[in-house]
Amino acid sequence: MARAAMVLVVAALLILLSSCPSCHAVARLAPPTLAMRRYTAGDDRSGGGGGGAIAAVAPEVQYETRYFTQRLDHFNALPASYGTFQQRYLVNATFWGGKAAPVFVYAGNEGEIELFTNNTGLMWEMAPRFRAMLVFIEHRYYGESMPFAGKAAAYSNSSTTGYLTTTQALADFAELILSLKANLTAHAAPVLVFGGSYGGMLAAWMRMKYPHIFMGAVASSAPILGFYGLSNPYSFYDAISDDFKSESQHCYDVLRNSWSELDKALATDAGRAQLNHIFNMCRGKVDAIPSLLENALVYVAMTDYPTPSNFLTSLPAYPVREVCRAIDQPTSGNDTLSRIKDAMTIYYNHTGGLACFGGAGDEDPYGMLAGWNWQACTEMILTMSYGVSNSSIFQPEPFNFTDILAGCRDYTGLPPRPYWIEAHFGGYDIGNVLKRSASNIIFFNGLRDPWSRGGVLKSISKSIIALVEPEGGHHVDLRFSTKEDPEWLKKVRRKEMRIIADWLTQYYSDEAIA
Amino acid sequence: MARAAMVLVVAALLILLSSCPSCHAVARLAPPTLAMRRYTAGDDRSGGGGGGAIAAVAPEVQYETRYFTQRLDHFNALPASYGTFQQRYLVNATFWGGKAAPVFVYAGNEGEIELFTNNTGLMWEMAPRFRAMLVFIEHRYYGESMPFAGKAAAYSNSSTTGYLTTTQALADFAELILSLKANLTAHAAPVLVFGGSYGGMLAAWMRMKYPHIFMGAVASSAPILGFYGLSNPYSFYDAISDDFKSESQHCYDVLRNSWSELDKALATDAGRAQLNHIFNMCRGKVDAIPSLLENALVYVAMTDYPTPSNFLTSLPAYPVREVCRAIDQPTSGNDTLSRIKDAMTIYYNHTGGLACFGGAGDEDPYGMLAGWNWQACTEMILTMSYGVSNSSIFQPEPFNFTDILAGCRDYTGLPPRPYWIEAHFGGYDIGNVLKRSASNIIFFNGLRDPWSRGGVLKSISKSIIALVEPEGGHHVDLRFSTKEDPEWLKKVRRKEMRIIADWLTQYYSDEAIA
Repeated sequence: MARAAMVLVVAALLILLSSCPSCHAVARLAPPTLAMRRYTAGDDRSGGGGGGAIAAVAPEVQYETRYFTQRLDHFNALPASYGTFQQRYLVNATFWGGKAAPVFVYAGNEGEIELFTNNTGLMWEMAPRFRAMLVFIEHRYYGESMPFAGKAAAYSNSSTTGYLTTTQALADFAELILSLKANLTAHAAPVLVFGGSYGGMLAAWMRMKYPHIFMGAVASSAPILGFYGLSNPYSFYDAISDDFKSESQHCYDVLRNSWSELDKALATDAGRAQLNHIFNMCRGKVDAIPSLLENALVYVAMTDYPTPSNFLTSLPAYPVREVCRAIDQPTSGNDTLSRIKDAMTIYYNHTGGLACFGGAGDEDPYGMLAGWNWQACTEMILTMSYGVSNSSIFQPEPFNFTDILAGCRDYTGLPPRPYWIEAHFGGYDIGNVLKRSASNIIFFNGLRDPWSRGGVLKSISKSIIALVEPEGGHHVDLRFSTKEDPEWLKKVRRKEMRIIADWLTQYYSDEAIA
Repeated sequence: MARAAMVLVVAALLILLSSCPSCHAVARLAPPTLAMRRYTAGDDRSGGGGGGAIAAVAPEVQYETRYFTQRLDHFNALPASYGTFQQRYLVNATFWGGKAAPVFVYAGNEGEIELFTNNTGLMWEMAPRFRAMLVFIEHRYYGESMPFAGKAAAYSNSSTTGYLTTTQALADFAELILSLKANLTAHAAPVLVFGGSYGGMLAAWMRMKYPHIFMGAVASSAPILGFYGLSNPYSFYDAISDDFKSESQHCYDVLRNSWSELDKALATDAGRAQLNHIFNMCRGKVDAIPSLLENALVYVAMTDYPTPSNFLTSLPAYPVREVCRAIDQPTSGNDTLSRIKDAMTIYYNHTGGLACFGGAGDEDPYGMLAGWNWQACTEMILTMSYGVSNSSIFQPEPFNFTDILAGCRDYTGLPPRPYWIEAHFGGYDIGNVLKRSASNIIFFNGLRDPWSRGGVLKSISKSIIALVEPEGGHHVDLRFSTKEDPEWLKKVRRKEMRIIADWLTQYYSDEAIA
């Protein structure tokens, strides 16, 4: 049970931190009732962390901050629902071609909107070409978009947090965009919606549920099939194991064995002293090593990007390969613990600036945890990431749906609704369903990213297109381009642009706009 | 303002009573704060009414009554939303062909579900041919499906009535059908949804919003474009005027002049005595005459069916023609008042059993008013039916949106949301939008029916098909067939069957079900 709960929370965080550029402090925040500890890797905010400073914001990123008066609850008429809050959104109209020119919207996911604004290079790079206005909308209950007076009030209990649901968030986006267009008298302007990770799920669902407002969607690394009954509950961790195994059998074997080695060492004073010596833990916190390792492996797999990045942390190109290289050709020693230490260094201290592992950092620099933990335990129960199979590089954990739901119930005090997302948005037989009733969606997935196992990996129709890249990481297509990008990545982005151009051509032709 | 408010309520009732087989007692229930009186035409329940007894239920109509435990609010996670209520539904599985055979669902509208069950002959007549299960689902807040303990509690204030919204109703249907299919292990069974009037709107929206659950929709006389900005606010009453004018210019002229004649007579004692003599009002209630006349004209236009019917009341075939015949060739006298009296007799006393006009009847035999008046003032503000133009057979009333909204605010105590339905379901540029993102919807409209002016009257694609009949009344296609049905009506129903058969063939082919 404890393990299941831990995995549950990891699952929540994975999608969260997937877009978190300077989070080498990877928190494992468990439901408080389960009394899990928090782990941090380094004092990243103070500059002592592996990646050093927060990634610089690209010069293209220039915007105006605005606020929209949003309704508290769109779907009932209780008096309280007519309450309002200020929803933040960021706008760049520099390139906008006027009333019939496109509006590109980012469907903000679980965090401050600046995070996604700064990292969705694709939109910034496409704006001049398409003469598009850019709009980045913050998701309710994140960043400044709190429906109650401040974050503490918004998250104080389920009577305030209860308005945090995906359906409300989608309706927020719909209402905001309708108002924006009305104010611009730009009724004919085609609106495209972009998103990565949970934001990608929102983007796809926006196109499905509000096709009259959003004429197309780019859903990057969106595990819309990650729910119970739609995908293998072991698939997330199996994918990570596959990533490492593909580098070397030896790497896979060392990682598999590492947990028992760590447990053995942690069980004795001598072992703990040895661990502290090898890993150089801040304040001797050797108990944190297993979690730090697990987090490193998960995030390295997700962000197995083909170029050096300072997105999750400063990482070399192909960090999974680098981790395995560190394990297979260690510099600290040939024993398992030294190999693991060298592996962790790739993730936590690639640039060598960290004095010790496990220092106190800001565990939630983008304000994600409270909201996502709630969402992940009420509706967004992505079962694909809860089971750990016996052949995993992680410690096996049988998938136990009952335990997961019980843990969630303890955490929120409410019965989880694991079937609601599929009931509302679909998922079963998705190919035939979307073929008959949808259009204009790009589903990008990089197969190195474990979330891809919950994604749409086959094209469904001429305009519902799966772009699948064997070498790709978590929404790598959305990132700012670099000179070092491999050909396949350049090609993916060119394809996305071409598809969008086709949609727009079709749209203008349908609407008889010259 | 008083007139605007009256019109507002009429608008609400029109759609309501459109499916009300024995409602010759036509109530004008106004918002209580506007102190409108109630009008009744005859003591229909005591057998003294024009049409006599309630229409007999067809022998095909056999069902089992079931209840589904439904969630109070689907879209937020407030603790109260997890409350449940028993939603009633009626099932006939006599003809069902088993796990892959179709399920035909009626999307219950604003009233007891028996009403729609008894009157949707098309579903009963198609069930054997398609080996379909029939399911008629009651709309929340109507009939027995009260979310709180009894109707009085459900409608006691906006904190209880506030859960009455279309989006909640649609989610109810979705959850109920998913559960029903799961219990039958009939995941592959195609589900089609039918509805007339508001039920037709629900059917169309179900297909648009839940295409993964409903593979097709028959939306009969569904004014989904009846909202502000989507259709002419004078169109409803103009259509009625056109109906009468098409019979004879004289009929139209007499009706146009009738209101001033009535007002003049009502203003003096002698005039009132004359009115009482001519109209034979129960207990001398001559003030009710104008409303009774207006109601008669509206409902005769809506139910201008090509065969004798006892649907709204006992009526001859083509009742608009009969009303005009009574006006043009009166039997009581050649003055306007006598002509009007003869006209009213067609609607209220066709079979001659009524002793006097305006007796006390059950004004709301199907439990529609409380719910629909609420819906019509919160979200379902069908502006197409509020304005009365100067060339109308009714007393002109300029469309005044501000007054309508103010009246609604007074009635519910809440700000009306006149743009929400379009924001959520669309409407603007509907042809292009649905062409790109939907399929499998039949929109039937009869042009004699004034609600047709808010309907989809042009086919949108190969599978989004408008069936438009110049001679048709309000959802005439859904009625039980009779031997006297004209060829066009038989043809419409055959077309609907053929289209449904095509959808099913395509579905089974897509799903590779032999």
